[in-house]
Order: sequence, then structure tokens, then C-alpha cells
Amino acid sequence: MDAEILAVGTELLMGQIANTNAQYISQRLNDIGINVYYHSVVGDNPVRLKSALELALKRSDVVIMTGGLGPTQDDLTKETVSEIMGKKLVLHDESLKRIENYFKRLNRPLTKNNIKQAYLPEDCLVIKNDNGTAPGCIIEKENKIVVMLPGPPSEMRPMLDDTVIPYFKSKSQEKIVSKYLRIFGIGESLLEEKLMHLIEKQDNVTIATYAKEGEVTIRITNKSNDEAVALRELAHVEEEIAKVVGDALYSDEDKELYQIVGEMLINKGITIAFAESCTGGLISSVITDIPGISAVFDRAVVSYSNKSKVENLGVKQETLDKFGAVSRETAVEMAEGIRKVAGTDLGLSVTGIAGPGGGTEFKPVGLVYIALASKNGTACKELRLAGNRRKIRNYTVLNAFDMIRRWLMNESNN
Amino acid sequence: MDAEILAVGTELLMGQIANTNAQYISQRLNDIGINVYYHSVVGDNPVRLKSALELALKRSDVVIMTGGLGPTQDDLTKETVSEIMGKKLVLHDESLKRIENYFKRLNRPLTKNNIKQAYLPEDCLVIKNDNGTAPGCIIEKENKIVVMLPGPPSEMRPMLDDTVIPYFKSKSQEKIVSKYLRIFGIGESLLEEKLMHLIEKQDNVTIATYAKEGEVTIRITNKSNDEAVALRELAHVEEEIAKVVGDALYSDEDKELYQIVGEMLINKGITIAFAESCTGGLISSVITDIPGISAVFDRAVVSYSNKSKVENLGVKQETLDKFGAVSRETAVEMAEGIRKVAGTDLGLSVTGIAGPGGGTEFKPVGLVYIALASKNGTACKELRLAGNRRKIRNYTVLNAFDMIRRWLMNESNN
Repeated sequence: MDAEILAVGTELLMGQIANTNAQYISQRLNDIGINVYYHSVVGDNPVRLKSALELALKRSDVVIMTGGLGPTQDDLTKETVSEIMGKKLVLHDESLKRIENYFKRLNRPLTKNNIKQAYLPEDCLVIKNDNGTAPGCIIEKENKIVVMLPGPPSEMRPMLDDTVIPYFKSKSQEKIVSKYLRIFGIGESLLEEKLMHLIEKQDNVTIATYAKEGEVTIRITNKSNDEAVALRELAHVEEEIAKVVGDALYSDEDKELYQIVGEMLINKGITIAFAESCTGGLISSVITDIPGISAVFDRAVVSYSNKSKVENLGVKQETLDKFGAVSRETAVEMAEGIRKVAGTDLGLSVTGIAGPGGGTEFKPVGLVYIALASKNGTACKELRLAGNRRKIRNYTVLNAFDMIRRWLMNESNN
Repeated sequence: MDAEILAVGTELLMGQIANTNAQYISQRLNDIGINVYYHSVVGDNPVRLKSALELALKRSDVVIMTGGLGPTQDDLTKETVSEIMGKKLVLHDESLKRIENYFKRLNRPLTKNNIKQAYLPEDCLVIKNDNGTAPGCIIEKENKIVVMLPGPPSEMRPMLDDTVIPYFKSKSQEKIVSKYLRIFGIGESLLEEKLMHLIEKQDNVTIATYAKEGEVTIRITNKSNDEAVALRELAHVEEEIAKVVGDALYSDEDKELYQIVGEMLINKGITIAFAESCTGGLISSVITDIPGISAVFDRAVVSYSNKSKVENLGVKQETLDKFGAVSRETAVEMAEGIRKVAGTDLGLSVTGIAGPGGGTEFKPVGLVYIALASKNGTACKELRLAGNRRKIRNYTVLNAFDMIRRWLMNESNN
């Protein structure tokens, strides 16, 4: 089955937002073996919308549409699809009830416009929306399938994941299973080289690598008529890859590095505190994205000034004078200092030059020290990073989390 | 002139990246009065690329293409465009020299594939690429214009801004000028209501509002044969809008709120420190995105635990016991505490419940206190925010920066 993603919305053509829905839907469809050959975007214009949809139905088996399901006169997706597919719009009682309840909860009056949202093409499969008012739907006709989903990603994503993807899975005899392996610490080219023997002999299981800033994701996919067989083969390939990449593999569930670290800390009950300089609170802000992290995260000090390094972290003035704020010695004292004042199991510190100014011949922009203090002593890592300020800061954050992850792994091995 | 943006790249259809190029190009074209009616994406497939380009040339005057200019066999944009436009590919000496120099600088050998990148359609206008190897080009034929740009945004953006936009501007008699006014603290509906008299009477100058999370941007655009006239009319409308929105208008240069605050602090030489709880270091990480902020930013304490609030900020244990960590009283002591320990002009604190857990009947998720301590005393603001953890944290950050901005504005008025 070949698919096309057709987004409707003038805000996309004005450049107010990027079409991240197309990215998300493409990933999910590719995961289950549906090829995406086209993305298209048209505005809230009935003539152009109609011709774009006609074209999509001519060249693709499946058309996934996003947007244009809102309550206003501009929102024309349902009307246009119904016209082209020869369906009437009829009131869907259950959707009307959901919309009425939605407004009741918000304590806001229901308007006529919102009732329009409960009208759906006859004989369609309704997709309920738990995060907004516009229901979605799936229409089948003459070997073509049109799916309509609302534009806001927070509404669209759960509807896709919970209803649309299972719908397509159930239509196919073939079972397609995918897994994302996340790797930190090996570049994409080197990784491909290391995996070449697996990539070359791939038969059922396909292996693809994708580089993301500072990280690589490996997607492995398998199809079979028997899901258990597909999963078994996938597990075998995952094992082979794990042998090659070793502990650079940090997740086989497509999780972010910071999530893995947060979960490890919480599960092991190991407490932590941060002392950040060049990252300016990024490490702390990222880990506090995790609900419930307060069980193990005590505090962070963003010691931008030397005065703060001395006062908050107990870094010695003579260390700063002799070695400078960006030095192995200062990083170590910062890590030990935050561990001591916070009374946590771990203390992690970062000091570096994120640029664009502040670099010298001996301490260039991109020089970063990360130190991790624990009951076993203090380890310090020197990084020499390339790129602009944003890249250097982000790459430092990844390295910091990876250092914690590796400590936690070794700890549990002891 | 009506335009279409056609991106070429299988990585877009696989969902590896979002088509942010289309967003960027759409903004820039709209700024100079070129309507964008379609975005399309096709993979590195010659047949589909050809038919997508033929369609684009049929329905649009201008086709801006991104991607497919790389050195590999997959990269087919130039070949396909040349075929359809009836042009030969010829070696462009200057581009070859640029590519040779690029590899010399990197100390890497030049391959045959890279020489392919110096071949361009005859009679085209070459767009030089200062950040990569693939030159771009503009081809005109029979009232149609095709622009080819490389896919990586860091290469594409400067080529668009420095060559393509001036090229289109020079083609038009009419001068189009735009300005973005950034507003914080008035919702989009209310803002439209307040501006209705201006929106309704708009003649030359068009006014459009765009909502972004927690903020609104107003774009004002004007066209005239005389740029000075266009600018004068624009300035007049800006004044009218400013009268209506007052000091909710924080930038007329499309800058972010935190940038405005950072610049104000640096220009006035006013020092600051943060005490963050529910935002977990976000405020600090955002402001340290600004190079040179160390002149005024001293430190931040992310006091996630109550212990840290007492130890680092001098919050009284009895305040925590009596009023709780999320309270006006604690926020005030945190702000005064961080101002005192850091010895800065300003101390800003945040404490709140970001959710999803931790809410109670009297202190629900979304309850946030922001306090700002200065020589004039301490102000505290209570917020009741809706949305998920991410939204609550981001909205708190915006409110915090706005509170600082308003203090700095009043200060300079005294």
C-alpha cells in the first residue's frame, strides 16, 4: 500500500508552523510497511483542496489528511472529501455527546459551529478525539482509503497511534514489526562500517541508520505472516547489533538518553545534583522534564560566576586562579562540591567554553570538562567539541547524561 | 506571482526530518508579497520527481526546490530540471574552484562525485554556497522560474536570504515591506477584537495575527512603488497598534522575549540571579543561550528539594511548614534569598506545580508563583496555568521574562 499525506491549512503555507505532522505520520506508516511517496500541503481553499485530493486519490492508495476539521467556515476538509467520495455528512450522536461534555467540563457554552464538528461522512469509521473537539474518520471506497485527522499534533498523534495504525495493521495479512535502537558515542559512518556485515546479509530484517545531532538511531524492521516469527528474527538481529556496538546502545524503545538516565536513577533510588556552568541549567531543565524526578533530583547550581563557584560549591579560589574556571581541576571541585552540599549519591559538574567568544589558543571554544563525583571518587572527561554555541551546549548535555548512564551501568554490575 | 515549494528527499518521506525548509521559505516569500499555494515533497525517485515538477510548473509561476543537489547518484534534481526545462548541464568554473577550495580547507581529497556538483544548467543564475559544496541556481524560461537550493538548512537559508529574495525583489516594481510585532500578555481573540478598527479599515497595510504558544505575533505588510512611502505607512500603523496594545508589545524586530530581556539587562548593566523550582533550570538555560550574558547573569539555584530552598536560599523552615513550598510566601523568600546570596540587583524566583501529579484541591496543577526582588522591594505574581507539564513550564518561563521586562521598563522611566 502506498500512501500520501495531505495537510490542509493556510498557516502552513504562511510559514507560521512546520508540517511536523507529516514527519510523525510518515514514521508510523513506514514502521508498519506502508510506503509514503508524497507529502502535500494546500491552504484553506476549496478549489485547490479539491484538486489536490483528486490527484492524491489518483496516485496513492491511502490518503492521510490533517487539518481543516475545525469549527469555522474555513474548515472544509470533511465537506470536500464527502463531495469527492460521494458521501453525505450525517450527525454522529456519540461525537456530539463528546463535544457537549468537552464544553461542559470547560464550563463554556456550546456554539453552533461546534455542532458542525459532529457531522461526519455516512458509513465512515469514526476516530474519537480525547484531546479536543474534532473527531477524525476513515472512509473506504473502491480500494481507496481516506483518513481525516485534526491538525493540532496533541490531538492528531494519539488518534493516529490508537486507532489508525491498528486499523492498517488489521487490514494486512503480513505482520510488520520495527524497533528503534538508540546509540550514543559512535558516529554514523563508523557505525555503518561496523554493521556492514549485517547490512549486507540482511534478508528479511532491514537495517537503516539515521543520524540525529550527536546520536544515531538504527531502525530494524521485519515482516512475516507470523508476528512471533517476525519478532524472533528481529530479536536475533538486535543481539547481533548489540554485540557490535556494545554499551553505546542505550535504548531499544526509542527513548531519549535523559529519559533512560532518569528512569535508572529513580529505579535504583540513586540521588543526584548538578553544578552547571556553560550549559547554564540545561542538564537540570532536561531532567526535570520527567514527572516524579524529584524523588532523586535534589538541586542544581548554575554557577556562572566564579564567585558562585566558590560560594555555592566550595571551589577553592586558588584552584580558579591557578587553573582557570574551565579546567579539569575546577570541574572536579565543582562535582565534589555539589555532591557534598546537596548530600546526594552523585554530583555532576560541567564547565566549558560554549562560544562564540571566550576562546584562547590553549582553551579554544568547544573545550568542556564534565566531572562525576561518587562514593568511588571523581571521574573527569575532557571534550573538544565543534559547532556553534547551541550545538556545543546540546552535545555537552548528551555527554553528561551518557557519563551518568555508564556509571549507573557499572554500578549495577558490581 | 504564485509559488510552490517542492522538496526532494526520501529522508523527508521516511519521517527522519521535518520539512522546516518549506516553513522558512514560505515566511520569506510571504514577506515580499509572493503567495505560496502548495508545498510538495517527493523522494529521490526520477519518475515521481519529474511528474511533481511538471505539475508544479503547470499550476505555479515560481517553483522553489530544495534538496537533491548532493554528490551521489541519488541526487537528481539538476538533471530532472534540466531535462524538463530543455537545458544542458555545463561545467561552471567558478563553482568548481569553490568546491576545490572547500576540500583543500578541510584537507580532504576531491572526488569525482563532487565535481558533478559544479555542473549547472546553461544560462542559469548561479547561487554560491558559502557553507557547503552544492551551488544553487535560478532558471527562467517562458514566464516560469525554477530555483534550486540544497537541502541542509544551514546552507539553504543564507542562499535564500542573500540571493533569492533580493532577486525576486529586484524583479518587482512594487516594494513590499513587512514587520513583525511581538506581543505577550494578550490572547489572540482579544487582540483581534482590540485591533478590529485597524483590521477593518486596512487598505495598503495588511495586518495579520498569529498565535504561538503563549504569545501573539502581528505581521504588518505594505506595498508601494516607493519604499520610503511603504515604510512610512507601516510606521504609522505600528504606532496605532502600539497605542492599542501598550506595553504588551515587546519587540518590533521579531525577537524572542528572552533576547529582549537579555539585551535590556546587558545594556543597563543590571545583574540578576534566579531561584527556580518547577521550571528546573529552564529560565537559566534560556537566558544563557545569549552569548555575553555572563556580564549580568551571576548564578541560578534550582532548588528542587525543600532542603535546598533552606540551605541555598535561606528560606525559613517555618515558612515551608506553614505555607508550603508552592506559596506566595516561599516565592518571596526565594527571590529575596537568591538576590542576597548572589549580591545581584535582581533576584527572580519560581515555585509551582507543573504536574501531572502533585496537585490538590487548593493547590491544583498549574498553580505557579513568580517573585521578583529588587531594591524597590519584592513583587509576586500568582498564575493559574492550563495544559500539560511542558506547557506549564514554558508558559511560566515567558511570564518570568515578562515580569523582568516590565520591571526594567518602569525602572528606566523613573
